[in-house]
Amino acid sequence: MSDLLRIRPAATDDMIAVFDDAATIAHGCAFEVALARAQAACGVIAPDLADAISAGVDPARIDPAALAEEAALAGTLAIPLVARLRAMVGGEAGQALHRGATSQDVADTVLMLQAREAHRLLVVDARRVVDALAMHARAHAERRAIGRTLLQDAMPLAFGLRLAHAARGIGDALAMLDTAVAAHAVMQLGGAAGTRAGMDGKGVAVAAHLADALGLGRSAPWHARRTGIAAIGVALGILIGALGKFARDVSLLAQNGLGEAREPLIAGRGGSSAMAHKRNPTGCQVALSAATRAPGLVASLLGGLPHELERGLGGWQAEGPVLADLFLLASGSAAVLAVVAEGLEIDADAIARNLAAAGVGDDIGESAAILAELLDGLED
Amino acid sequence: MSDLLRIRPAATDDMIAVFDDAATIAHGCAFEVALARAQAACGVIAPDLADAISAGVDPARIDPAALAEEAALAGTLAIPLVARLRAMVGGEAGQALHRGATSQDVADTVLMLQAREAHRLLVVDARRVVDALAMHARAHAERRAIGRTLLQDAMPLAFGLRLAHAARGIGDALAMLDTAVAAHAVMQLGGAAGTRAGMDGKGVAVAAHLADALGLGRSAPWHARRTGIAAIGVALGILIGALGKFARDVSLLAQNGLGEAREPLIAGRGGSSAMAHKRNPTGCQVALSAATRAPGLVASLLGGLPHELERGLGGWQAEGPVLADLFLLASGSAAVLAVVAEGLEIDADAIARNLAAAGVGDDIGESAAILAELLDGLED
Amino acid sequence: MSDLLRIRPAATDDMIAVFDDAATIAHGCAFEVALARAQAACGVIAPDLADAISAGVDPARIDPAALAEEAALAGTLAIPLVARLRAMVGGEAGQALHRGATSQDVADTVLMLQAREAHRLLVVDARRVVDALAMHARAHAERRAIGRTLLQDAMPLAFGLRLAHAARGIGDALAMLDTAVAAHAVMQLGGAAGTRAGMDGKGVAVAAHLADALGLGRSAPWHARRTGIAAIGVALGILIGALGKFARDVSLLAQNGLGEAREPLIAGRGGSSAMAHKRNPTGCQVALSAATRAPGLVASLLGGLPHELERGLGGWQAEGPVLADLFLLASGSAAVLAVVAEGLEIDADAIARNLAAAGVGDDIGESAAILAELLDGLED
Amino acid sequence: MSDLLRIRPAATDDMIAVFDDAATIAHGCAFEVALARAQAACGVIAPDLADAISAGVDPARIDPAALAEEAALAGTLAIPLVARLRAMVGGEAGQALHRGATSQDVADTVLMLQAREAHRLLVVDARRVVDALAMHARAHAERRAIGRTLLQDAMPLAFGLRLAHAARGIGDALAMLDTAVAAHAVMQLGGAAGTRAGMDGKGVAVAAHLADALGLGRSAPWHARRTGIAAIGVALGILIGALGKFARDVSLLAQNGLGEAREPLIAGRGGSSAMAHKRNPTGCQVALSAATRAPGLVASLLGGLPHELERGLGGWQAEGPVLADLFLLASGSAAVLAVVAEGLEIDADAIARNLAAAGVGDDIGESAAILAELLDGLED
Repeated sequence: MSDLLRIRPAATDDMIAVFDDAATIAHGCAFEVALARAQAACGVIAPDLADAISAGVDPARIDPAALAEEAALAGTLAIPLVARLRAMVGGEAGQALHRGATSQDVADTVLMLQAREAHRLLVVDARRVVDALAMHARAHAERRAIGRTLLQDAMPLAFGLRLAHAARGIGDALAMLDTAVAAHAVMQLGGAAGTRAGMDGKGVAVAAHLADALGLGRSAPWHARRTGIAAIGVALGILIGALGKFARDVSLLAQNGLGEAREPLIAGRGGSSAMAHKRNPTGCQVALSAATRAPGLVASLLGGLPHELERGLGGWQAEGPVLADLFLLASGSAAVLAVVAEGLEIDADAIARNLAAAGVGDDIGESAAILAELLDGLED
Repeated sequence: MSDLLRIRPAATDDMIAVFDDAATIAHGCAFEVALARAQAACGVIAPDLADAISAGVDPARIDPAALAEEAALAGTLAIPLVARLRAMVGGEAGQALHRGATSQDVADTVLMLQAREAHRLLVVDARRVVDALAMHARAHAERRAIGRTLLQDAMPLAFGLRLAHAARGIGDALAMLDTAVAAHAVMQLGGAAGTRAGMDGKGVAVAAHLADALGLGRSAPWHARRTGIAAIGVALGILIGALGKFARDVSLLAQNGLGEAREPLIAGRGGSSAMAHKRNPTGCQVALSAATRAPGLVASLLGGLPHELERGLGGWQAEGPVLADLFLLASGSAAVLAVVAEGLEIDADAIARNLAAAGVGDDIGESAAILAELLDGLED
Repeated sequence: MSDLLRIRPAATDDMIAVFDDAATIAHGCAFEVALARAQAACGVIAPDLADAISAGVDPARIDPAALAEEAALAGTLAIPLVARLRAMVGGEAGQALHRGATSQDVADTVLMLQAREAHRLLVVDARRVVDALAMHARAHAERRAIGRTLLQDAMPLAFGLRLAHAARGIGDALAMLDTAVAAHAVMQLGGAAGTRAGMDGKGVAVAAHLADALGLGRSAPWHARRTGIAAIGVALGILIGALGKFARDVSLLAQNGLGEAREPLIAGRGGSSAMAHKRNPTGCQVALSAATRAPGLVASLLGGLPHELERGLGGWQAEGPVLADLFLLASGSAAVLAVVAEGLEIDADAIARNLAAAGVGDDIGESAAILAELLDGLED
Repeated sequence: MSDLLRIRPAATDDMIAVFDDAATIAHGCAFEVALARAQAACGVIAPDLADAISAGVDPARIDPAALAEEAALAGTLAIPLVARLRAMVGGEAGQALHRGATSQDVADTVLMLQAREAHRLLVVDARRVVDALAMHARAHAERRAIGRTLLQDAMPLAFGLRLAHAARGIGDALAMLDTAVAAHAVMQLGGAAGTRAGMDGKGVAVAAHLADALGLGRSAPWHARRTGIAAIGVALGILIGALGKFARDVSLLAQNGLGEAREPLIAGRGGSSAMAHKRNPTGCQVALSAATRAPGLVASLLGGLPHELERGLGGWQAEGPVLADLFLLASGSAAVLAVVAEGLEIDADAIARNLAAAGVGDDIGESAAILAELLDGLED
């Protein structure tokens, strides 16, 4: 039995699929096939063995529930998976499968394949938020509004400047994530002690072939050097926080006494089971819920950094679910806020009314120049 | 498609079932039926309406995937659930369903029903760990061993004292959890603004009936007062940490240079995909992985405490998945460590050898008295 | 040079003094003197040695800066402190000082003495918040106001009910803290391996004497069993969150468009360096800043639970500063909110105006009964 | 009264000085003087006013304790500081001081000046760790050792490979920090609502002058856009974790049963108050204690990201002390590990003995090539 009700609100269907059992198994199989092909290409195993492995491995024949049961017992996905694949392939080819590799090679490579894919999906939604905010920012670059600091009316600013800040914050966080994924979502192949022993001295070449085949960056093994995965995780945490900042602002501006902006009306969203008249900022809720959870998840990831010697005990096993949760939360946040940003209802009358009520004039200083500088930075 | 491979290692099947879609839906239905019955008992709705609701509500007729989809859109489980149940029941009875209640009444009560059940399951496994450790502690109350501080040989102690500390730490954490669940896993019924309006002034009586029917403690509404749920969460965090302490010790004692204790041999557990000779402390790994993740999850829970006014935006929506994760992690940790503790292999020769090598005599001071005091405290 | 500007905003002078160098040194000295007296009372050392120790130890003769320098190098306060005290006392008595004790005995006992004192101070301010809120709650038990959920106008409630929730949340958190401090702020005396060796088999009696003399609870050693200190820390985290909830509400209600309540005017507080007209919710800011920091601090504390064997490496050394920070933050939050709560300005006209604007009638259901139940619970 | 005993172990004297009261006051004064000069250069104020401000401002005349007291009351450092400086300068010039600026402009710029300086100090010590590890790695590139995974003997590797991983992890984290500080430790000047109003439309030019004068990067205001400060904080968290990984390894290798490496003997370090024979891994303890605390601090920083509107309430006020703590912890960790790394004692006999005992041969695969790749990456 799945747990859609627990996980679903935080992510798009596509993003959920990135981390589900089918994807995990498919990537694990792809790793073993690509490894065999790479080893054949480098002369470590005979080409016909690689062909037999390639032909014999079939993810569809693996029962996720049974595999999960055994993986939980074994403490690693790779042992029961490799056992199945060897049985599936049979004979000498079966024995050649997973040659020179270790469990963590499979687990880490699978996770990084998922990270790449998750990043690709996430960027689309997050970019939609940025673009929509930039568009609104430009449209309201001259609109005078009352600025609020410490939740009190302060001095005027351009309403668009507020949105430009949100756009730039998300854009900068996205740039950090792009950099982290490009640099650190790389393949893992080290073998039992991270030395690539057991591959006839051709481990470096095999690793290069494997990385290229899987579409991941090449890398020295990193079994116990987890700065890269941490870099991806913290960038997700910052992105979720930046998205949360926009959600916080919309939810505050949508308050009944203020009414300057609010989420668009979406069929099936924002209702109340007790109050038919109510329009809840449900998209903001999703994003703020994600922002409440993300800092702790990042802490979990960082907490495992001091891995023990060549492969840690507990630390790295914690990373997979945490990184997946961060992507799922970022995905949910970006997807709902894309809709919110694109359809954001801005009430010019309320803005003008609130500004007038503040009684501090309408000098918005150099709002326009700052707004332009913020948006220009997005194109970098 | 589920994600067993991501969630499974951390929990028993029974514990996973506590938080799965079927259980969530069943509890949600139970809430609505019990509410109708309570309102009938108090004269708020006609008895035949309650009968019709009771007869008409059927959790099996609800498709979890479709419900999850709509719940994600609506931002709450209750709106699509109540809509389905009203259609299922039909007529006047359908309209009477969920009377005076709000979405969070359903969500919080469901979560507390799950917390009660999860606690009941968890205690069994955690208690097994404590009992096994206490048993070993007594059996080795006189065995001289070298104590290690800051990971260096220090002075002697009774080997059993080490285990008695682990037992007591887990026992104390369990007692905190028992207290927290007893006090705070209570029903929620407040209605739209937490005033129990719309129940003809009989809200207090209805709430009492409802609580009793569901087997939960009675309580004033707590929509935005989340100290209770935080108390449960932090107790889980401490329990996971206390279990992790035992796992840390076993993994250190099992090192090849020390060899004083190790996990029992379990078929399918502890192997290596690269090294047939190896026996990994896989149970410890599960528990230490849980201990790596728990502090961040607790932080997420505490981060939502400053809820906004009568019902927060983001904070409380974050709690459900986080509390579930804490129970799942505690469950996985306790279940594997129960097996580890019960079958713990203690190597008297290695212990004696290491003590002799330390060359600091064998005065174990008042180890026996302290050990007895620690174990006595478990019975409180 | 101190760092008052960094620490000061978060705590009262008295609370800062609890954790400053002078207090730390004084408690360390008190531990050594009380230990000698306890050992003399139990016949472990000669009474005249204890007299000489008692007479010779003088905290005022210790230079904090030099001690801090050496403690940083040694990795523990106790080594340079004991060296100084032995030199100060001299002769046979000097050698008898610290007999059978270990560094962590001093460090943990000092920390628990500070926790006791910090708790005593904190309770006074936190209780003031609770009492003031309860008083206002009763005074506004009948005042109709619009309830707000997800930051949107929802249905009416008694304005006092809102305050009663805040009072009860803080009161419940305080009760958790009282329980945790009473149970777990206990003495530490275990010696090098936690066995109380080196005290002629009279360690239990010595420990009892020591505890009584210092006014701390008696306890078996707990060098690597840190569930108790975690229990104190999490209770502080929950208390800071509960205080933050009240601050969140005041800051939201004080918004210019709402104006239902605001902080009292305090000379020197709440101004703006740029806007003379502005009245900032500065007390709320202090409390919300504390609530932003506390969850991470709690995570740090829990992260160290899986201590290594008889005494951990890194975990317990992290606890002292973190626990102190939690007390300092709780203190600052409680002290400023005591002033806010006692002088809270409630604007009946604005409340009525906002309720009327919501247009959802004025049925506050069973607000009064719930309010009474919440406040009754405070007296438990 | 300071709290050196609490803070000292975690940082060098120089690093402590970066964040102490004197530095904070000096930077605050420097901001106001540089602002006046920048405004004079741009024609916003008369040059003689800037001269008078420059001549009149004297940080030495400000009493930190009194300032801290008032800052705590005011909720911001800037108000009492500016009041003092205006009184100090007097007349028209006094009134011209702080023109167009807001409290947060001072606070953020001061913090970033401290971050720049702290980064400069930190890099020196962290680089020493990296260089020493790289040197040892090369020296032991051929030394066969037993690799350990999940704390169990696994397969052989080059001892130097282990150290090369540690070096590269720290080096990569340092590169992330360098990037973050270069990009985000920038000046802040926005005025009350972040629009640079009140500077005669010359705010952009003034800001550029100010940034250049202070040696900080130019930037649009970022009062409520905190992704940059988060980026610095997470990089510190990763660096502390990477340093902790090396400390973890040394502490494990130094265990009595293993003995492959240990900290150098430093006078006054590593002793035990109870056991004269003991040599504690005190440097590792400092680094692991920092690694225990850092994840929570990072969570605190991320928790404040969803700032409210133009300037948040609680979130940004939490950042200063947290960022300072991260720098202090990183500093302490790097400084002690620099000594540990430079003097690391590597026991070739123990390494050989442990490898032989493992009985898995001595094939270290492509250790040398991987080691070279790791160290080459450091030069990038």
